Parts: sequence; structure tokens; C-alpha cells
Amino acid sequence: MRIALLGGTGDIGEGLALRFARDTSHEILIGSRDPEKARDAVADYEAELEARDADAELKGFDNEMAADRADIVILSVPPYYVGDTVEAVADSLDSDSILVTPAVGMQGDEDGLHYHPPDAGSVTELVAQRAPDEVPVVGAFHNLAADALSNLENELDLDTLVVADDDDAKATVLTVANEIDGLRALEAGPLANAAEVESVTPLVINIAKYNEDMHDVGVKWI
Amino acid sequence: MRIALLGGTGDIGEGLALRFARDTSHEILIGSRDPEKARDAVADYEAELEARDADAELKGFDNEMAADRADIVILSVPPYYVGDTVEAVADSLDSDSILVTPAVGMQGDEDGLHYHPPDAGSVTELVAQRAPDEVPVVGAFHNLAADALSNLENELDLDTLVVADDDDAKATVLTVANEIDGLRALEAGPLANAAEVESVTPLVINIAKYNEDMHDVGVKWI
Repeated sequence: MRIALLGGTGDIGEGLALRFARDTSHEILIGSRDPEKARDAVADYEAELEARDADAELKGFDNEMAADRADIVILSVPPYYVGDTVEAVADSLDSDSILVTPAVGMQGDEDGLHYHPPDAGSVTELVAQRAPDEVPVVGAFHNLAADALSNLENELDLDTLVVADDDDAKATVLTVANEIDGLRALEAGPLANAAEVESVTPLVINIAKYNEDMHDVGVKWI
Repeated sequence: MRIALLGGTGDIGEGLALRFARDTSHEILIGSRDPEKARDAVADYEAELEARDADAELKGFDNEMAADRADIVILSVPPYYVGDTVEAVADSLDSDSILVTPAVGMQGDEDGLHYHPPDAGSVTELVAQRAPDEVPVVGAFHNLAADALSNLENELDLDTLVVADDDDAKATVLTVANEIDGLRALEAGPLANAAEVESVTPLVINIAKYNEDMHDVGVKWI
């Protein structure tokens, strides 16, 4: 399959790109608003993979072209760009595409980070509202620390929760997420359950803040 | 120390009573609106502990007397009784008491359970609003499955998150929670961070609902 990471030049996009490229046989496409930036990121990621004896070829495009070519389109952009990005690539998606959103709305104060969902109830549901009706939307990869993913020396032992209303799309994302070494993807139900999944993200950041010996905190459901 | 479990005749109260009695040297008091019911629960718990070669003596009282005698008062009552229970025992608490709340507000629909906090932002903050000003309030034990706790054959390997504005009270609760075998208590900051902690409770229930091989789901932060 072809997996596109829109906004795949930073943060969680980098980690997912590296892990998918190293651990799976899927074709990885990096999308950016600026295709030159996408191609630069591809060169960096290929060098990083080669340095770890994990050769893989990635491809860089602008977001629209990456979305057009992909079976699975992951919106690894900051939450305030999610709506715009969905609209920018809407014409490149169809009922055979799967749109995946890992973004979370948060606000910070002196106490820590707090969950701050949009009116839609969650960013995941906001994406579903903005996406063309025929495009299945899946929430996944919400609670993963970007640094934990992008450092390939770090062996993962983490869970990610997957929510969707479309069972086929959900099953596909569960399968590919489980192909990343050390990542276990679990079901968390329909899109209506996304808020509780998203709100774990400020929580893991707060746990890292308040426990000196914990960094890049992740979660295992047991 | 003396630890009182108000509403300690069912649900998470039973599990915490059994675990504290078996794993720690603290004196465990069971509170109920009906002291007779508290004493019946004590007899049951002592029999359960004796059957597992873990003799311990517990004591049963009405909620007010249990709160009056205890250093740590755990509100193991359903969320809709939390406010009333705090008011009922307010005169039995003082600045040397620590009031601990594990309750969470949830609503269910066909999709699963959803976090449904009160206007205070979280049940934990509601308790802090209702408690006398001088009584420190600590949020803890929110995301533990009652059945996983009350079955003493089940070896725990679980985390619980602790929030409080009072550092001394928080430290005390962290210490006693960590004394339960297999339970690790972690800091999650001040009371303002309680909502994200509480919202993990509907999530663990949803994960159990949507993953056939998972029951009494708990969490480890790693």
C-alpha cells in the first residue's frame, strides 16, 4: 500500500515515516505544502535509514499529489492546520482513500496541558466533518511521543488506539499500525469515542512534566 | 495510618479495602451510610483475607465516624453521591485529614462511555469545592477496574495517577498507594489536571468493550 504523511517533514510525521519505511513494505510518501521541503525531508529520512542499515526509498510531493497517490493519508500536521489541510487535499481523496488523523487540541497553562477539543467534540470528528462524505476517516497515532518515534534506536513498546465509523478502514489502519515494530494498535470504537482517546495526549505530557525520571511518556493498556 | 473507605461496601471500595488490608500495615476503616452494612462488609472482607492467609482486622462505622477516625478518607462512592457524602462528613474532617476522590463522571450511549465532567471541570475539583477549605483534596485511584482490584488472586501491574494542590497530602497518598503490591502511583500535577486523568476511565471501559480479549483494562504509563 501507499501511505502518505502530509506534513511529514516534522514532529510525528517524521517518526511515522521512519518507522513505516523501516518496519513495513509499504511505499511511503512525504507530503508538504512545499514539495521542495518534502524532498529535503525524504533525503534526510533516507540517510537516517541507511545509517541504520534499513535502506528504503521514500518519495516527496506537495500535499495534494501525495494524497492523490496514497491509499492511506495521514494528517501529521499541527491541529490548527488540520482543517485547511483537509480542504486542500479534498479533491485528491475518494472512497478508496483512508484519511487518518493523529492531531489533538490542547491548551497549556502553568499546571500543564489540558485537553481543548473543537466544537465538533474532537479533532478526529472535526476532520470527519471537513472531509468529503465518501472518504472514511480514522483516528489513530494520537498518543505517541514524536521523539520516541523518530529516534530509531528507541525500541517501542507502546499502544495506539484506533477509532472509526467505517469498519473496513479501521481494520486496514489497525493492520498497518500493528506492522510497526513494538507498536500495538487497539480498537477504541467509533469516532464518537475520539475525545477520550485524544485527551490522553495532554495527560502523557503532564506525566512527563511531573515525574522527573519519565520522558516521552507513552501508554500500554493492560 | 488510618485509612477510611467511605462507601467501602462495594465497587472500588471493596478492592481498595482488601488490597490495603493485605499489603500494608495501615488500619482500614469501612464506612457506609448504614453502619450495619459496613460491619457486614468488614466480616466479608476479613473472611476473604483469611481465606488467602492474609489475616487483617478491619472496622466498620457509619461514614461520619469512619471519616472522623481516619487520616486518609477515600470517597469510594458513586459520582452522584460524592457531593452529598462530602457534606455529610464535612464536620468530621479537619486540616489533618486527607480527602481522596477516585470518582469519575461518565455517560453511556451505544458507542461506549464518554467523559461527562461536572461544571467544576472534574469530579475531583467538585470535591475540592465542596470540602471545607482547610481539608486537602487528592485525586487518585481513578482508572482502576473494580473487579481487577477485588479479586485478590489477580496480581496487579497497574499505574494510578495522583493530582493535588497540597504537596504534603499528595506525597502521603503517593506513598500509601505505592504500598499496594503491583500498583505504581505517579504524579499528574495539581487538581486542574484532574479532567484528563478522569477521562481515562471511560476510555479503559471502551477498550474492554471493543477488544474481545481484554477485560478489566488498566493502564501503564511508560
